Parts: sequence; C-alpha cells; structure tokens
Amino acid sequence: MKVGFIGLGQMGKWMALNILKAGHEVTAYNRSPRKMEALVGEGASRGESPAAVAADARVVFMSLTDTDAVQKVLFGAGGVMEGAHSGLAVVDLSTISYMGTLEIHRRLAEQAIQFADAPVSGLEARARDGTLTIMYGGDERLYAELLPIFQSIGETILHMGPVGAGQLTKLINQLLFDANVAAMAEILPVAVKLGLDPEKVVQIAMTGTGRSFGLEFFAPLILENKFHTAYPLHGAYKDLVSAAEISAHQKIPLPIVNATTMVFQMALAQGLGDHDKGGLIKVYEQLLGVKFRKKGFEQ
Amino acid sequence: MKVGFIGLGQMGKWMALNILKAGHEVTAYNRSPRKMEALVGEGASRGESPAAVAADARVVFMSLTDTDAVQKVLFGAGGVMEGAHSGLAVVDLSTISYMGTLEIHRRLAEQAIQFADAPVSGLEARARDGTLTIMYGGDERLYAELLPIFQSIGETILHMGPVGAGQLTKLINQLLFDANVAAMAEILPVAVKLGLDPEKVVQIAMTGTGRSFGLEFFAPLILENKFHTAYPLHGAYKDLVSAAEISAHQKIPLPIVNATTMVFQMALAQGLGDHDKGGLIKVYEQLLGVKFRKKGFEQ
Repeated sequence: MKVGFIGLGQMGKWMALNILKAGHEVTAYNRSPRKMEALVGEGASRGESPAAVAADARVVFMSLTDTDAVQKVLFGAGGVMEGAHSGLAVVDLSTISYMGTLEIHRRLAEQAIQFADAPVSGLEARARDGTLTIMYGGDERLYAELLPIFQSIGETILHMGPVGAGQLTKLINQLLFDANVAAMAEILPVAVKLGLDPEKVVQIAMTGTGRSFGLEFFAPLILENKFHTAYPLHGAYKDLVSAAEISAHQKIPLPIVNATTMVFQMALAQGLGDHDKGGLIKVYEQLLGVKFRKKGFEQ
Repeated sequence: MKVGFIGLGQMGKWMALNILKAGHEVTAYNRSPRKMEALVGEGASRGESPAAVAADARVVFMSLTDTDAVQKVLFGAGGVMEGAHSGLAVVDLSTISYMGTLEIHRRLAEQAIQFADAPVSGLEARARDGTLTIMYGGDERLYAELLPIFQSIGETILHMGPVGAGQLTKLINQLLFDANVAAMAEILPVAVKLGLDPEKVVQIAMTGTGRSFGLEFFAPLILENKFHTAYPLHGAYKDLVSAAEISAHQKIPLPIVNATTMVFQMALAQGLGDHDKGGLIKVYEQLLGVKFRKKGFEQ
C-alpha cells in the first residue's frame, strides 16, 4: 500500500519505520528535514510537503504533538488537504482533542476525504518494538483495510467505535490517571504536615485500598526527589483541555477533573512544566511548607 | 493482662475473642447485651457498663462505629471515665475523626489517663483470622506492653507516631481510595454518554495507567449492577468528615477531596447510603441519563 507518514518524532519515527519494514511504500515528511534522514536511509521516500505526501498515497498517517499541529498539517499552506484526492484516507495517530477530532472529521467529510483517529499508548520502547496499544475510531471497512498496517506497529488493536472513539477511549484512561495522581499529590503531603513518616505512609498506601498505578509509579520517585522520569506536565496538560471542552460543550459536570485541572494549572504557573506528573506534589509542598522525601533526599 | 473490650460488632467480636484466646482476662461490654453471649460462653466476663469494665482493667479497648459513639462510651453516664483509675490505658481500635482523636487525648490526659489510637484495616474475615493491619499512634512504652495483644489480632502492626498518627495513616489511605473511586464514577459515564461500550472502556482502563484498586474492585461490579458488596457509603462518609475537619482547622486546601465529598453528599442525598462506593456512579448516571452496565444488566 502507498503510505504517507507525517511527523517523525519520538513515537512517529518508529511507527513509520515499522510500517516500512512490513513492506509498504512509505513517503515521509517531517517539519525539521534532518529527522527524515534515517528513514530515507532505510528506503522511504522524502516528501516535500504534507500536500506532496498526500498526493499519491492511499493513506496518510499523522503522528503529531497536539490539535494545533494536526490542524496546521491538514489545513495550512502546503497541507494535506491541498494534495487530497478521492482515494485518500487520513488517519491520526496523535493524541489530540476529542472535540477537535470531531471538527476535523466534519471538515474532511465535506471534501469527501475519509478520516479516522487512532491514538496510541505505550512509550517509545513499545513504539520501537511495534507493540503499541492502538485505539481506533472510524469506518469498519477502512479498519479492515488498515489492520495489517496497525499490526506492524501495535500489539493490542481495538476498534472502539465511530470517529472520535479512539481519542475518547485514550482520554478516559488519561483522566483517570491524572485524577489519581492529583489526589495523591494533594493527600500525601497532609501526612507529612501532620507528622507522619513519608516512607511509612507510601508503604501503607501502596499495599492498601488507596493504591493506584499513579501512586505505585510516582510515589517512590517522589520520595527520591526524581521528577523527570515520565511524560512532562506541559504535554500531559492537553488531555485536561480536551476534557474541559467536552465538559463545556456537552454540558457534563466534571468536578474532580476540574479540581485536577486546577492543580495542573498551579504546577504549570509555578514553572513545573518540565516535571512529570509526580511534580504536582510540589504545588502542595510549597503551600504547606513541607517536603515528601525519604531521609537524605530532602533537597 | 486484665483487658476490657467495648463494642462487639462485626469487627470487635472477633478481636475480643482473639484476645481472650491468647490467654488474657477479658471483661466485655456491648450496648446490646445479646451480643455478649457468645464471648461470655468462651470465658469472658460480662461488663455491666463501660465504667465497670474500666474499673479493674489495665487496658480498655474500644471498637465502635464513629466519633460520637466513642465520646459517649468514654464521657457519657456510666462511661469509661467514671471507672477510670491511675493504672488505666484506653486504646481506640475504631476508625474515627483525627481531630476528634486529638481532642479525646487532651481530655484523657487532663485526668492522667493514657490514650492511644489503633484503627485497624481488613474486613471481617481478617478480624476473625487475627490478621488485621493495625496502625498505632501513641506512647512507645505502652506500644511495647500491648504488642503481644496486638499480635493476637493483627498481622501487620505499625507504630506510626504520637496519638492521632494511627487515625491519620488510615485516613490517608481511605481518602486516596475515595478520590480514586469518585474519579472513576465521574469519568466512566462520559464514555457511555459519548457512545463507547462500557465493557471495552473498563478493559482498557484496568490494563492502562488509569488503573487503581478502586477501579479494579468496583468497575466489574458496576457493569453487573452489583452495589452491595463492600462497605456502605453512609459509613464510609465519616472519613470525608474527618478530612473536612483537618482542612478547616489546619488550613490545608483539599480541592480534590472536596470534590469527592460533594459526590458522596449527592449520593447520600439521593438515598444511595446503603450502596457501596461503586454506587457513586449512579449520581452521574442520573445526571447524564445513561447506564454504565454490561449488556443484559441494564435494569
């Protein structure tokens, strides 16, 4: 199949490579041309623009940072829509706004261009190994046609429903994660403020009914003053923007997500955007004048 | 050791029995006398009142419902304080308010009566088997003296700090649990409202970064319309009252706990107090006009 691939970042470069290795004809594009070298060295063609990539492809995949980047690649000067043709399908592997995805779908449908969302989860290692989880939202026939490609980049591939269902599925998981971590960031410092030993508290919470993946992952890192292990807050924030759009436009009350968003915003306002989600605890540490660290890691 | 035991409920009856079996001289009291029969049959003495139980005991344990019940047993007519003597220690195995515990300690200290809090976790089966987790807050020498008794009722026994530290430790775990479950109750119905299959969403969340004990325990029960498996909301609510007291008096902002409390209050106001924490999802189901159930369990 003639495949276009736009966005060769940390995730995209591995997905494009795995599609290429599966025997497809890949034309790739990246805004910074340097990042195309490795893939071209493996046999991919160099796309001159998103429009050029789209021009003779059956499907164009995008793996981009956020909603703005996807909109620019599609609708900007030299964008995919300038090279669109009746046989083209566009599949967005990025994690972007749910409401934005519905809007993109509407605009592409007006031009009779097929669109599907297929955000992935798993970090860089799973992108490299072709073992990502892919959450697809879109047409059933297109899904069947693309399944061999999805199988070259992912291990768990789920058809969740119509367009948007992929983003929504991923968002639900991310919001649970964010809320669990924000709750931890709020509740653990209370223990220290009122005199408990942070290590003992973590030991109890991790084996108790209060445990969560967020706690199990971040609490031990926080105790050792490590805040740069996982995805940074400034990137993770987009999920909460997507939730805020859903809450506002669909009239769905989300009080816990709202409180979670406030904690993220306080962290970002304090310059903690480069910290991973464990950094949320610093918001409360500063408010309460305490540190939630093991002995010897108090700096 | 001469031991008094007040409160022979679901947890207390087993703890009192295990202390008795460990060879201690136990005098027991329960407001409803019928519940004393079984223990007396095993060799315990029948206490006529909390005061009488205290009169010749080295230590009086209490296993009661809430802060009010503990205050009544201690300070009410015929209460423990009427039988208090200089050699008495009072140990509260109940889960009650943290601020209330500090206040009780203050009042007992005025009368030179030793006090410690030692709330337990684990359900009835672990109380029966003597394998509870015990979180002790109080004097070190008293802890050493009581350790053989704690070992007869518990498996994991932790000295967390001064009086109140036991309640605080348990509270931290409960608040994490409550917040995780409330987040789940808020976020999962969004998926159904916007068209996803609830079973698939649970499958993804349970294997993703959004997972928590609360989700793993309650989401499968909710899917099958089961809301009476675990501790009911009307009892669990006391932990949020304890948190509200800490927030108010210690000036600690708790936005996520506050949002969690609001969801519990909405559930209680809707008559869901007999439901377990999974019942929180009904608040959002009613607001959004959806049901988060497997096919065939929609009633």
